[in-house]
Amino acid sequence: MSATSFVIFGATGDLAQRKLLPALYHLRGKGRLPPNMRIVGFSRTPHTDASYRDAMFDAVRATAGLQVTRAQWAAFARNLYYVPGDLDSFDRMLDLKARLELLEGKRRPADRLFYLSIAPGLYETAIASLGATGLAVEDTGWRRIVVEKPFGRDLETALRLNQVVSTVFHEKQVFRIDHYLGKETVQNLLVFRFANAIFEPLWNRNYVNNVQITVAETVTAGDRGAFYDQTGVVRDMVQNHLLQILALVAMEPPSTADAESLRNKKIDVLRAIRHWKPGQARQHAVLGQYNGYRREKGVAPDSATPTSVALRLYIDTWRWHGVPFYLRTGKALAQKLSEVVVQFTCPPHRMFSPESDECLGSNVLSLCLQPNEGAHLRFETKVPDQGMTTQPVDMEFHYQSAFKDRAIPEAYERLLQDALAGDASLFIRSDQIEESWRIVEPLLAPPGGPHGIPVRPYDQRSWGPDAAESLLEQDQRSWLLTCGKQG
Amino acid sequence: MSATSFVIFGATGDLAQRKLLPALYHLRGKGRLPPNMRIVGFSRTPHTDASYRDAMFDAVRATAGLQVTRAQWAAFARNLYYVPGDLDSFDRMLDLKARLELLEGKRRPADRLFYLSIAPGLYETAIASLGATGLAVEDTGWRRIVVEKPFGRDLETALRLNQVVSTVFHEKQVFRIDHYLGKETVQNLLVFRFANAIFEPLWNRNYVNNVQITVAETVTAGDRGAFYDQTGVVRDMVQNHLLQILALVAMEPPSTADAESLRNKKIDVLRAIRHWKPGQARQHAVLGQYNGYRREKGVAPDSATPTSVALRLYIDTWRWHGVPFYLRTGKALAQKLSEVVVQFTCPPHRMFSPESDECLGSNVLSLCLQPNEGAHLRFETKVPDQGMTTQPVDMEFHYQSAFKDRAIPEAYERLLQDALAGDASLFIRSDQIEESWRIVEPLLAPPGGPHGIPVRPYDQRSWGPDAAESLLEQDQRSWLLTCGKQG
Repeated sequence: MSATSFVIFGATGDLAQRKLLPALYHLRGKGRLPPNMRIVGFSRTPHTDASYRDAMFDAVRATAGLQVTRAQWAAFARNLYYVPGDLDSFDRMLDLKARLELLEGKRRPADRLFYLSIAPGLYETAIASLGATGLAVEDTGWRRIVVEKPFGRDLETALRLNQVVSTVFHEKQVFRIDHYLGKETVQNLLVFRFANAIFEPLWNRNYVNNVQITVAETVTAGDRGAFYDQTGVVRDMVQNHLLQILALVAMEPPSTADAESLRNKKIDVLRAIRHWKPGQARQHAVLGQYNGYRREKGVAPDSATPTSVALRLYIDTWRWHGVPFYLRTGKALAQKLSEVVVQFTCPPHRMFSPESDECLGSNVLSLCLQPNEGAHLRFETKVPDQGMTTQPVDMEFHYQSAFKDRAIPEAYERLLQDALAGDASLFIRSDQIEESWRIVEPLLAPPGGPHGIPVRPYDQRSWGPDAAESLLEQDQRSWLLTCGKQG
Repeated sequence: MSATSFVIFGATGDLAQRKLLPALYHLRGKGRLPPNMRIVGFSRTPHTDASYRDAMFDAVRATAGLQVTRAQWAAFARNLYYVPGDLDSFDRMLDLKARLELLEGKRRPADRLFYLSIAPGLYETAIASLGATGLAVEDTGWRRIVVEKPFGRDLETALRLNQVVSTVFHEKQVFRIDHYLGKETVQNLLVFRFANAIFEPLWNRNYVNNVQITVAETVTAGDRGAFYDQTGVVRDMVQNHLLQILALVAMEPPSTADAESLRNKKIDVLRAIRHWKPGQARQHAVLGQYNGYRREKGVAPDSATPTSVALRLYIDTWRWHGVPFYLRTGKALAQKLSEVVVQFTCPPHRMFSPESDECLGSNVLSLCLQPNEGAHLRFETKVPDQGMTTQPVDMEFHYQSAFKDRAIPEAYERLLQDALAGDASLFIRSDQIEESWRIVEPLLAPPGGPHGIPVRPYDQRSWGPDAAESLLEQDQRSWLLTCGKQG
C-alpha cells in the first residue's frame, strides 16, 4: 500500500490558506487525492497538529470563504499535520523528515511533494535543505517540488535558481507553477485551436491582422505595496501569465497533448519573439504607474515601479511574420477582465460598399478568459431593411449557460492534481522561464538609465497612460474588448 | 411630376389580401412608395373603387391580421382603385388602360408595374392582353411585370412561358418573384459570406464536408389540396426556393452586388449541378407522401403527388467537387423551420484523443433562416474539469437580441420596393428558371414509369420517410439541425 505526503513550506501563509488547503479540501471531497495522502505543514509559527488544524479551520473560512462545517473539516483535517521550524535549520528539517517517515510507515511507494509556498528569497535555502537532509532522494518513492512564481527576478537570478534547483532535482521533478495555466479558459485555448478544424486554417498571417491580450485588474497594490514595489507589473504579470497565454495562442500544433510536446511548441514561440536591441524597447513598450501608487503603504515615495504595461511584440516565424501581438496588463485599470482578441484581416473585396476605402468591421474572435468565460465571434450581418447595409454583431458562447450544472474549478485544483499525478503539461519548464526573462529584460532597465523606459502616470480606473493607446494608433489600430459587453 | 401605377391582376385574391396590400400599406407608412403612386386592382369580381376599398379593409384585417384603423385605411385607400373585368376581354383591358391614363393625367414619366397575382393558367392570357392593348409599351414611362411562381410546371412549359413573355417584354422588364429571396436571412447569406473575411477561406471542399438545406413545414395541404395535388413538393418548393438558397450558399463571389453580377454567379452554380442520367435520380432522391394526404379535400384518392423530398446533389466545380449538398423539404413535417447547415471536415489530427478513430464533433455552421433567425457555430470546447475532455457547444447569434428595436420586414415589402426601383437582384432571370427545371425534371417522372421515383408514405409530424435518413446514412452522415434548440 502506498503513501503520499504533500508538504507545504509556508503552511500558515496566505497562499496556503486561500488556495492550497481549499483546493486540497475540494479534491479530497471529489475523491481525487491519492489514497493515504497526508498534508504536512511546515512553518516557523509554533503549532501542534491540533492547533494547526483549528487555526486553518478558521483561516479557510475567513480568508478563502470556504463553506465547511466543523465536522467536515475534522474529517479532512485528520490527514493534516504540522511540523514547526525554520527552513535553514538542519535539525528542524530532520524533524520533518522523521515525521514523514513515521507517517509513511512501511507503505511503499512513499511519495513526497514539496510545495514552496514561501517568500522567493527562501527558495534557495529550502532547496538546499531538502538536498542536505536527503528529503529529496527518491529512495522510497518519487520526490517532486512545486515552485511558486516569481521564479527569479531577472534572467540572471532565474538562471541561478534553475542552477540551484538542478543540483537537487531533475527537471522532471520540478513543477514551476503559473496558476493562469490552470484556468479552464486558458487550457481551452488549446482545445479551441486544435480540437476544431475551422480555426487553424485562419490562424496565420494571411488572415490575422493582429492579436491582443489584455489581463486587467481593477485592484491597486493595496496592502501588498511593499512586495509589489519590489516586483512591478513586468515581473508580476508579463514574464509569466501574459507570455504563457501568448505562447498558447501562437504555438504550432503539437503532435500530442503530453507535457514535452506542448512545452516544446511553447518554447519555440518564446524563442521566436523578436529581440529588442538596447534602447529599442521604448518604441514598443509603454510603462505606467497609477496616480496615488506612491502613497500606498510600503511603496517608496519616489518609486519608479511600473503598475501597467502595454507592449507590441513580433513573432518571427513563417506563420506570424508581420503580425503584431499587443499585450497589456496592470493594476487600477478600468475593468477586471482577461481576454484574447484575434482581429482578422478585412475582406479582400468590398462588394457591398465598393465606393468605401474603409475596412468595414473586420472579424474579431474574442476568447474570454474571465470573468465572462466564453467566446465571441464578431461578424458582419445585414441590417434588416432595404439595401445591403451591414453591421457587426457577435455570435456568443458562455460557459455559464453551456455548463450550468458544472462549476468551473479553481485553477489550483487542476494544478495540484496534475503535480500529484506527475503531469507537467501545465507547468513551466526551465527553458521557458529563462527565455521569458530574456524577452522582458529590456523592460526592466532602470527608467532613468540610458535604455530605460519612462514610467507614465495614469488615472485609476482608466486603461493606462494615453501612450498605451498611441502604441496601437501608430499602427492604425486600437485596443478591442468584446467580452465585457454581456453579462 | 411623375406618376406610378401598381396594377394588381387578381386584386381580390388571397395573395393580394395577405401579402401585397399589407406590404404596400407598410411601404406607404414608411414613405417608401414613389410619389403619386396609385394601386389599381383588376379582377372579375364586380366592385366599385369604394366597395373594393371597403372589402379590402375587412380582408387585410381578417386575412393578414393587419393592425389598421378605418381612418388609417382611408388615408391609404385614397390611392386604391378598381377596374372589374376578365383578362381575356379586350374591352375590359382597354377599360383598365383608360383608367390608368386618366389617373396618370399629364404627369410624366407615367410608369406602370403589372403584378400577376393570378392562377398560372392565366399568365399567357394576361401577357397577351397586355401586349395586344399596348399597355406594355414603354411610351410614357417604364413598364414592368412581376410574375408569381410557379413559373411553368416543367422545363417545356417554362420555356414556352418565357417565350410568351419575351414577345411582349424585354428580360429587364420581367421580375419573376421568389419570395424566399426577399427574406432578410436569405439575403444575409450573401452578406455573411462576402462581407466577412473568415468564412470564404473555409467555404470549399478542403474544409466543408457537406451542406444541408432544410425547409420544413408542419402544415398539411389543407384547403389548398386541389392546387397542391397538381403541383407537389418539387414544383412548389425545390425548383424555386431550395435551388435559390443552394445557389446563394454555393456561388462564387461576385464582383459587385448588382443584379447581373449576382445572377450570373447564381446561374453558374445551377449549371454546374450534376445531371442525373435517366433512372439515376432514384439513387439520390427520396419522395414521400404523408399519411392522410389522399383524404385531403381536392386530392385524388389514389394521388401519387409527393409532399416531401430529400435530395443529394453535387456541384461540379473546382470549389465543390465531391461535397454533397443535401436538400429536404415537405409538408406535415416535425418542425417548421428553414436552416442551412454547413458541416466542416474533422480536424486532421486528434491530439486530445489520439486513440480514437472517430471524428469527434466536426464544426457546424448553421444559418437559421426561420423562425429563430440567426446563426450558430458549433465548436469543441473543453469540459470544465480535469483532463482534456471536449464537448461541442454553440456560439449563437440571434436577430431578436441584436435588432431588438427593428422588426424584420416582410419579404414582400423588400421585393415590391425593389421591383418599383427596377432592382432585379432578388428576382429570377429566365435562364435560372430554365436551368432549375432542368435540374428537377427527373424528379417529375411519373412514379409508375420506367424512370419514376417511388413515393413513400410517412407519418405526419415526422421527418419524412425513413429512406430520407438512409440517404445520408449511406454516406455515413445524418441530418443536422441546430437552430431549433434555442428560443
